[in-house]
Amino acid sequence: MNEALSVRLERVLRVISDFPKPGIRFRDITLLLADPVLLQEVLTNMTAEFASRDISHVVGIESRGFLFGVPIALGLQAAFVPARKPGKLPAPSVRESFFLEYGSDALEIHADSLTRNSRVLIVDDILATGGTVAAACRLVERLGASVVGVSVMGEIAGLCEPSVLTGRDVRVLVSL
Amino acid sequence: MNEALSVRLERVLRVISDFPKPGIRFRDITLLLADPVLLQEVLTNMTAEFASRDISHVVGIESRGFLFGVPIALGLQAAFVPARKPGKLPAPSVRESFFLEYGSDALEIHADSLTRNSRVLIVDDILATGGTVAAACRLVERLGASVVGVSVMGEIAGLCEPSVLTGRDVRVLVSL
Repeated sequence: MNEALSVRLERVLRVISDFPKPGIRFRDITLLLADPVLLQEVLTNMTAEFASRDISHVVGIESRGFLFGVPIALGLQAAFVPARKPGKLPAPSVRESFFLEYGSDALEIHADSLTRNSRVLIVDDILATGGTVAAACRLVERLGASVVGVSVMGEIAGLCEPSVLTGRDVRVLVSL
Repeated sequence: MNEALSVRLERVLRVISDFPKPGIRFRDITLLLADPVLLQEVLTNMTAEFASRDISHVVGIESRGFLFGVPIALGLQAAFVPARKPGKLPAPSVRESFFLEYGSDALEIHADSLTRNSRVLIVDDILATGGTVAAACRLVERLGASVVGVSVMGEIAGLCEPSVLTGRDVRVLVSL
């Protein structure tokens, strides 16, 4: 990890208390998005970790994972595959449910988006319980593809249950 | 407009009939997202149109506008500002409601995301009635900033009411 980058990220990711529910300390990424130099440095680092791993597809998780996933896919010359909330994708899809820090939800990907030869990198902004990313991993594997790794900008320390992402190659730029 | 690019886009943006409601011919962008060479060409074209216009901020409309907005903002070295569905942004926000091809909705942006000096490019994937983009323009102007233009990949011919975006500099790569 780049120490200076993690310090700058920690500073720019402001805490919003009690959002979206009481007791949650939400990390707001909008000041990072407003700084194109820092954002590019973040994306370059998130991409470099997997540059030599023959990634064919980047799965970005709706909707903040879209912000990071597309530039990373372009950097890796890989296909971008959106993992969306239920009912948003127009073609036949597969679905996985999961539990969140605040409630439960589900993700879908198009059934024709991956094949058995696909080597997939999963991208999201911030890892909390890990439930969303674990659901994305299950979706990829249900289509017979391989999860090469997971790239997230940040993680909320202490929230991710160790068992949820056991055996996954998860790279994180900053622990919050 | 690049004729060859518009022909390739027309081919890759498959039609899904009766999605999300009966009578809608939905244009699916996922096969474009899966082709990093074509996607980069689209983004380069959408960016080049505004490269000499001193854009300071790119407003991307949730959530498909996020997919195009971040790479365009990075290309212009501009801040990226997400325009989100109600309740998603954690800091104080302003809101505008609008009507869609199928229903009504609203968009919000952070009140601290733009100033009177901001020169804004609004980005979305596909223009239908123009109501969403018009709401984004109103949000930008409520914060005292200037809308320099609107860059969308495609438009559904015949759906956009001419009065909705009168006087706006709207650039479109392909008419569908």
